[in-house]
This record gives sequence, C-alpha cells and structure tokens, in this order.
Amino acid sequence: MRESKRDESPTAANDTLTVVHSAAELVVGPDDDTGLVVSEDAAFAAVDGRVAAVGPTEEVLADYPLDDAETTIDATGKTVLPGFVDPHTHALFAGDRSDEFVAKLQGATYEEILADGGGILRTVDAVREASDGELVANLTTHLDEMLAHGTTTVEVKTGYGLDTETELRMLDAIDRAGENHPVDVVPTFMGAHAVPRGMDTDDYVEEVVTEQLPAVAEQDIAEFCDVFCERGVFDADQSRRILEAGREFGLTPKIHADEFAAIGGTDVAATVGAASADHLLHTDDEGRETLVEAGVTPVVLPGTAFGLGAAYADARAFLDAGHEVALATDFNPNCFARSMGFVATLASVGMRMTPHEAIRGITSAAASALGRADGTGTLRPGSPADAVVLDAPNATHLAYRFDTNPVSTVLKSGVVVDA
Amino acid sequence: MRESKRDESPTAANDTLTVVHSAAELVVGPDDDTGLVVSEDAAFAAVDGRVAAVGPTEEVLADYPLDDAETTIDATGKTVLPGFVDPHTHALFAGDRSDEFVAKLQGATYEEILADGGGILRTVDAVREASDGELVANLTTHLDEMLAHGTTTVEVKTGYGLDTETELRMLDAIDRAGENHPVDVVPTFMGAHAVPRGMDTDDYVEEVVTEQLPAVAEQDIAEFCDVFCERGVFDADQSRRILEAGREFGLTPKIHADEFAAIGGTDVAATVGAASADHLLHTDDEGRETLVEAGVTPVVLPGTAFGLGAAYADARAFLDAGHEVALATDFNPNCFARSMGFVATLASVGMRMTPHEAIRGITSAAASALGRADGTGTLRPGSPADAVVLDAPNATHLAYRFDTNPVSTVLKSGVVVDA
Ligand SMILES: [Zn+2]
Ligand SMILES: [Zn+2]
Repeated sequence: MRESKRDESPTAANDTLTVVHSAAELVVGPDDDTGLVVSEDAAFAAVDGRVAAVGPTEEVLADYPLDDAETTIDATGKTVLPGFVDPHTHALFAGDRSDEFVAKLQGATYEEILADGGGILRTVDAVREASDGELVANLTTHLDEMLAHGTTTVEVKTGYGLDTETELRMLDAIDRAGENHPVDVVPTFMGAHAVPRGMDTDDYVEEVVTEQLPAVAEQDIAEFCDVFCERGVFDADQSRRILEAGREFGLTPKIHADEFAAIGGTDVAATVGAASADHLLHTDDEGRETLVEAGVTPVVLPGTAFGLGAAYADARAFLDAGHEVALATDFNPNCFARSMGFVATLASVGMRMTPHEAIRGITSAAASALGRADGTGTLRPGSPADAVVLDAPNATHLAYRFDTNPVSTVLKSGVVVDA
Repeated sequence: MRESKRDESPTAANDTLTVVHSAAELVVGPDDDTGLVVSEDAAFAAVDGRVAAVGPTEEVLADYPLDDAETTIDATGKTVLPGFVDPHTHALFAGDRSDEFVAKLQGATYEEILADGGGILRTVDAVREASDGELVANLTTHLDEMLAHGTTTVEVKTGYGLDTETELRMLDAIDRAGENHPVDVVPTFMGAHAVPRGMDTDDYVEEVVTEQLPAVAEQDIAEFCDVFCERGVFDADQSRRILEAGREFGLTPKIHADEFAAIGGTDVAATVGAASADHLLHTDDEGRETLVEAGVTPVVLPGTAFGLGAAYADARAFLDAGHEVALATDFNPNCFARSMGFVATLASVGMRMTPHEAIRGITSAAASALGRADGTGTLRPGSPADAVVLDAPNATHLAYRFDTNPVSTVLKSGVVVDA
C-alpha cells in the first residue's frame, strides 16, 4: 500500500506561514454530539501545510503575526470551513448520457434505456474507446469544478473498464490526474461495478478475484476496493469474496449497499471491516446497528435520490441515535453533481439534516469514510491546512443557498489553490 | 408608464457587430408545440444590440464576416441560448433569515417562526431600517450572481416596505440598481405582499389603493402591480380591487395565486387581465383553463416547493394540453435561489418537464410573463441580442447538471457582460 501522497503534492508548502483571520464563523471540527464546534471572530495559522493554531483571532495573531506570514486572508464577514471531502464518486468517465436523462423524464424505464444501449455499459464502451490522455483530461475538468466548489479531497472509483486492461488504465488516469492537481485524489478499484455484457456473474467474479485484483495490486495505485452489492448485480457472497480478496491484497473494503434492496450488504460490510457502506436507501434498524457496531461509516448520497425523484436515505435514524453520517456526490453520468455545498442543501432539504450535521457529513465524517485519521476534514492543530472560505456570514449559508457557489477561496495544505 | 430602458442601457452598443458562431447547438426560440427550435453548427450576428441573422454558421458568416465584427465568440463544442428571463423574484431585501431555515428543518411550524419574530415581517423590519445605499448594494450583489448564471432580464418586487415611504424607497433602489447593471430589471409594486403588524386587512387594502398606488404612479418606476392572493392574506375581492386600481394607474396586473389554497386567484387573474399568475400549486383543471383562455401566462416556482419539501405544481397538466409554462426562481429569504439553470433542473427532476420545455420556461415563456413582445427570450432576427454560452455540448446539459454553473459567457444587447 502506498503512503498518502500529501508530501509529494505540488501544493505542499515548506517553511511557510499562512494566516486566515477574523472569520465571522470558523468550523473547527466535530463536537461530542453529531454537530460542529464553531468559533466566532476566529483565525487559524498554518505552518508547512498543517494547522499550527486555531482560535480567537486576537490569540492566533499574537503567536503568528500577520507580518510573518507569506499568505494572509482577511475573512471578515466570511465563514471558514475545513476543505470538503467527497468520499464516493465515479468521476472518471467518457461519453455523454444526457439523452438518457431526457428519456427517463419522458417515462422510459431502466430496462428500456438498457435495450437502447444505455446505462453503465454504454459508459464502459466509451471509456474503453477513450485514449489515456482523454481520460486524464476528463477527470481534470471535473477536479477543477470540484475544487472551485470547495472539495480538497475526493475519492474516484474505477468500474467503467470491467476488464483488466481498462481497469488498470482507469487507475493510471486517476493517479495521473491527481498528481497534477491540488485536490487529493483517493483511488478505488471497483471492477465489480457491473457484469460485462454476455458474461456469467460467477465467471466475472472469478476474473475480478484471480485476474484483476492481482494486477491492481501489482500496479499499486488503488487504496480501496468497492463492490456493487445489489439485487441482480453482485450478491452478498460474491461481494464478500471480492472484498476479502481485495483485503488480502491490501485494499480496504467499501461497499455499495441497500440502494434498491437490502440483500445483506450491511452484514458484508461489517464482516469484512469496510471503511464505509454507501447508499443505504433500504437499510433498517438492524442494518444500521450492524454498521455502527462494526465501526463502518455510513455514506448517504442524496444527489442520486434527487435525480431519480426517489425517497432519500433515512439519515436521521443514524443521527437521532447519536451517530454521524457522511455525505458524497456519487458524481457519475447518471447524477451530474460535483458540488458538496449542493449535497449539503439536499441533505438539509431532503433528509432534514441540520446544516451543521451536513457540514460534518462533508468534512470529518467523510474523512472517516476514507479512513483518514490525520485530521483531514477538521481545522485542529496538526490537521492538514485544507480550508474553504465562504462569502457568507455563517456556515448555515452553505446549505441555505440552494444553487449558487458561496466558496470564495480554497486552500490546500495552506496554499491558496482557488480564488 | 415609462418606456423600456433598453436604449439607455450602459451596455447598449451602437453600430457594432457581434458574431457568435460554430455552436454545437443554438436555441432559436419556441417551436409550434411546447418545445424549442434548435439549430446545430449554428451562429447569430448582432447589430446595434439586436439579432440581425441566425442560422447555419456558414450562411451567417457569409453575410457577416468575422473580420467585420467588433466581438466574435467561437462556440465550438458549446451551446448558445437566449439570455434567461427570471419573471418572479423578491430579490431586494435586507437582513439574514438563515436561522429560520434551520428552525424549519428542526420542525418549527410557520406559526412558531412568526411567534419568534420571523417570517416576512422580520424582513420588513430589516428593509425599513436599511439605508438606500445598502438596499442598492444588496440588490446589485444578487444581480451580479444572477448574471453570472445567465439571467439577462429579471423582475424584482417590492413588498418588504408595507408603507408608502418604504415601498417608494424600494422602487427607487430597484431603479438605481438596474440603471447601473447590465441585467434589465423590471420593477413590480407589491405593497399587498403581507398585512403590516397590528393592522386590519381591509384598512391596509384601503391604504394600498388610496395612498400607496397614487404615490407609486407619481413616482413612475413600477411597471407591474402584484398581490399575494391567499387564504389569510388578501382574498379574491381585495386582490381584484388592488389590481384594478393598479391598472387604472397604468400598472399591469400580476398575481400570487393558489400557493397554499385555491381561493379564486385564477378568476381574478383572468378578469383583471393579468400578465401572469404565479405559484399555482393548488390549481385544478378549471383554474388552468381559466388562465389559458384569458391569455394569462402560468408561472411556476419549483425552488419554493423544493425548499419547503412540498409537492410541485402540476406543470405537466398545462404542457400536456399544449400550453407553455414559465419558470422563475422566486428568490427571497425563504428560497435562496438565483440560478435559472437550477430552476430548469428542478423543473425537469421535480415536475418532469423536458429540458427543452424548461429552457422555454426560462426564456420566451418567461418573457411572456413579463409582457415582453419584442423577441426577448428568443434569438430571432429583431430580438434583443441577449445570449448565454454554455460550456456544454447540448442544451439538455443546463438541466442535466444539477449543481454547477455551465454558463461561460453572457451577452446583453450584443455586448459581453460576463465571461
Ligand atoms: Zn456509486
Ligand atoms: Zn413571490
């Protein structure tokens, strides 16, 4: 398993001081409940890419005077948050499926869209045909847009290759796009995203386990292994087999569970020690308890439900029992969403999460879903100095504003990377 | 009644040629059904702020060579649309009500929020206390954001004054903000937005008709008069009285109808000859027929329903009967939405309008809701050369992309005003 690439990042700053001060509100990190610790008239100082101090502006500036800083940001009247973490995307793809969006609005069923050559396998065809350069360029465009909306860490899955060669090409493109971009990109191998056309599911599982996974391990880019555990796709036994095999190769498990039906994905998540279980639209009390007891972070994806006009996951059931919920865009050709601020709006409007719960869901909770224990998603001393400045008087505005981007400045490792 | 201010606009261009060419798609205007006429590999030329030619790039460039143009835009791989028209906003306000957004998520009722000093009357207090300069600055900030999202014409209502002095101050601020901004601002007097604290409704209607309206007419800024015809606010008779009095003073009627209950607003709209009836959440077949037969443009506001988690208006009932539907943001402290692209997304996802129907709703149909018969909302010869370039391969992407702004360039009267 590779080390985190933070130290190799093009934006890593050495021996430099950055001070962001006078924020109307500054989100420090999670509180003891399911909300946030928020400071007023607050500042943070970053040294060598990590938070050195956070607190009242007066105190921070006493220890870290503005005159000593290479970069200063006056956040008067503004709000400072930890950089957003998007822990579930399919952001690397090719082709255009906007016509399927129209067909679905006009009543086409999933089966009809498949019969017309649509759906995931259409994207698989487009990705197989795309050049390496095109794949890197496509992902880079999306990383730019995500960064402009405050995302500083994003997970990106493969799964539009479905053969060893293309899955490795996807991982390579994810790696190359991430190396040249301020956003930290976390690569997930998801050969088990769908079953290739004309192939038996058991045969394909065999291929994933005996051909794809060894090659992925040899390539040494992927950090996680994910499976679409769903009725008609991969059942619980097949999912467990793939995730356990991945774990043997050093890949931490993740799982798509209970999106259309509860077929045992939460039990698989618990037994394989998954970092997260994602979707959870049909999870019941027992499934929730299984996840919580096993320390699996629940990730809900309200953009997907929004796009389908479907019911949202029951995030409140976790929160009301005292457990945090992570949020992600699920960005893919079927859910063209790249803004975590919009995800926070949907979490509030659609799932009755408070804006503070939602912000926790896109910062520290999302970092947990990616197994980041280094303070990512918080602005506490020692944390990576990844931060977002909102041109808004309080953190609530991130969710309160439905449709425009309140992010005015983004810092990665203490360096301004979008303004 | 004042003339349109187009000729006085700071962006009006005289004796200048602008050519936008090679668009993958160019939306010309409405078709004979409820959709759009869309040209591929298309161009338009604008002379002196109006469209002079539109069609295949080759043909337009033959008559209007790029060498003769002051401004040229190569829209290869991009999409060109008429500038967006937002026909219903309460965009001029002061104060912050984001805390009410949180209270509502936590289950507070409208009555509880009112008891805590919240709701419309809280904004009324803030607007009465705001300086003229603050009001102009607030609206200008919102106009900037709207323009960046493609809006080139926006209606703005008063109604946070509720006394003659403040209503006139609001109209003056709307006028001043509009004079110094590329976006065309259409002022609507809405003294009958709510009943002031401690006042009898009939007494207030009397004040609106006998004091406010004569002063508004004397001031000569407002173009429309609007009323909140709703259970517990202004009933049908009161609404009719105000709109008829407004008409006497030269103000074209508009009406908020059937938002929470159908109390006769559609009949009022038809009998007073309203340009539009807006909200229509509880309108039945008879109400829809009444509007269509009277030539009243239906305006639906999906952002409001989205924010409330309420059911959407039945836009399809109009469309399936062959009638177009206009869309608006309803931007106000209770619905913090300024992007017409987002409104198009909500119209598609929430009301099953096709992206083409939605684009018609935010362009030519919205222009009808504002009584604009000069081609506003289309790119036909003679139309104002207000246009939006999307960094997207087709018009569908405006709705297909849920949360990011695909607008790359905005032209007003043939001049680039945002890029
Ligand atoms: Zn997924
Ligand atoms: Zn309104």
